[in-house]
Amino acid sequence: MENFSVTILGSSSASPTSQRNTTSQLVNFFDRLYLIDCGEGTQTQLRRNHTRLSKINHIFISHLHGDHFFGLAGLISSLNLFGRNRPLHIYSDPRIKQVIDIQLEISETVLLFEIEYHPLNFRQKELIFEDKKLEIFSFPLEHRVPTCGFLFQEKPSAPNVNKKSISKYDLSVDQIKSILAGKDLLVGNGEKIANSELVIQPNPPRSYAFCSDTKYFDSLYQNFEHVNLLYTECTFMNDLQEVAHQKFHMTTQDVAQLAVESAAKKLIVGHFSARYRDTTLLQSEIQSLYPQTILVNDFDTFFINNSEPDS
Amino acid sequence: MENFSVTILGSSSASPTSQRNTTSQLVNFFDRLYLIDCGEGTQTQLRRNHTRLSKINHIFISHLHGDHFFGLAGLISSLNLFGRNRPLHIYSDPRIKQVIDIQLEISETVLLFEIEYHPLNFRQKELIFEDKKLEIFSFPLEHRVPTCGFLFQEKPSAPNVNKKSISKYDLSVDQIKSILAGKDLLVGNGEKIANSELVIQPNPPRSYAFCSDTKYFDSLYQNFEHVNLLYTECTFMNDLQEVAHQKFHMTTQDVAQLAVESAAKKLIVGHFSARYRDTTLLQSEIQSLYPQTILVNDFDTFFINNSEPDS
Repeated sequence: MENFSVTILGSSSASPTSQRNTTSQLVNFFDRLYLIDCGEGTQTQLRRNHTRLSKINHIFISHLHGDHFFGLAGLISSLNLFGRNRPLHIYSDPRIKQVIDIQLEISETVLLFEIEYHPLNFRQKELIFEDKKLEIFSFPLEHRVPTCGFLFQEKPSAPNVNKKSISKYDLSVDQIKSILAGKDLLVGNGEKIANSELVIQPNPPRSYAFCSDTKYFDSLYQNFEHVNLLYTECTFMNDLQEVAHQKFHMTTQDVAQLAVESAAKKLIVGHFSARYRDTTLLQSEIQSLYPQTILVNDFDTFFINNSEPDS
Repeated sequence: MENFSVTILGSSSASPTSQRNTTSQLVNFFDRLYLIDCGEGTQTQLRRNHTRLSKINHIFISHLHGDHFFGLAGLISSLNLFGRNRPLHIYSDPRIKQVIDIQLEISETVLLFEIEYHPLNFRQKELIFEDKKLEIFSFPLEHRVPTCGFLFQEKPSAPNVNKKSISKYDLSVDQIKSILAGKDLLVGNGEKIANSELVIQPNPPRSYAFCSDTKYFDSLYQNFEHVNLLYTECTFMNDLQEVAHQKFHMTTQDVAQLAVESAAKKLIVGHFSARYRDTTLLQSEIQSLYPQTILVNDFDTFFINNSEPDS
């Protein structure tokens, strides 16, 4: 199932390094692209990833620290230059509009497309986007400025009547409707065929949670219980617990605890402090606490499926 | 003479490509660093160039199109994060302050250092920086928004009395002063030693001109006659002359003409339209008009000396 994936465009924290850009991720759900955060240089990362920029219609900005949004004005300018005319939806702290407006005004840029701003709710979990197959929720985090995480939740698919049964019993449209409503089938000889023999059960719906900058708090895991793939920030190793708490960030231990509580099927972590040029020790520490953890690198892609996601 | 150089940090025009960042250049003059323009991603380019960010005290922004300043807020944030406390000088259209202020305010960033904004003069050439060895001038260009180019002009050095003469004639401090004032030397036997035999003439002062986005105009070359190294934008090939004029940019032909008129010792060009993924044809065209031209790539360094600069 390669129709649900996330590609890491930036895995550094506050400042980019020569190897890691600041935060941005690209979620691909059935070839529709959703951008989460847009640190400086995101448009260049998208180009290096050979992403068709025109396929991005929805951008989610977790909070207004520069390393999560300083690339937005440049991306918008380039979309404009490339002739975009469809609306662009930005889900964010509403103050982002001031930043974009002044940069467009000063550079005398006239946008050829509309930007629709959707204010995030920083007090409670909220459904912010929905189409036939997907729901996207925001949920509040606890950081130094208003911050949200995002949950991408596939909608449950309906079961299908299996093709073999349709031909074997020469099923009519009404019979198919009845089976899809959960009924058994009465055939000519009075025999009753169990519904479960007639239908193919859909795959369970899949989910991805993006847990942006936050300190650990008790109820956090409730926003993404049993998620297939969980990304969280992991800014510090455990010896810097005090610094982490002061700065409203998480340590390896916080992250491992969160993964256990949420029963996430797989955990990926990023947003490392630039002090960890070599992340080997951080990796050892978190894997000693939660062995299934993967430390992300820029341009890693993770597929989200019903077994464990593979990188 | 490797004490005066320019390193290209970005050579694309409006949008970055996977190979070329948007405009920024780093001038190194006797180990003091001056940044010209700061397109998105400049701080990452500086890191890849192993530049010590703390050595940059002066930033020159040619104009307020995004591809020349969208990286400034990120660079300032990182300087702050790394504990800068010395003032930073920004030479720009004064409206840049609004852009920086709102981004710092929204991200709740408290700067630990002062930013001193120096407004550019868009009407006439002006000395904007001076120290013992260097003068920097801005000069007006003709683009769609107020735009300046910059001229880095080494100050003439005084001649020195050669060491051989000092010991041969056992020169006193007063005699040295007299020689440095241009006088000949009378020695014991009444013999007159010509001043020219006593002094070492300094190297002629060197210069670098950065010609940002502009259309060609007749008097432009007067701002940097006989410059050692001239950089200009060269956005389009000559078949797009009309587009270039409409957009206030230059073609290969404009640039070649400018190089001839200014009698620049060497010409380097960048800011290519992203349509030229392969710049071979653009290179052929401009070299057929001005053979000494070099098309720049990101991270090229050009040394500025009294013969032809070498890359």
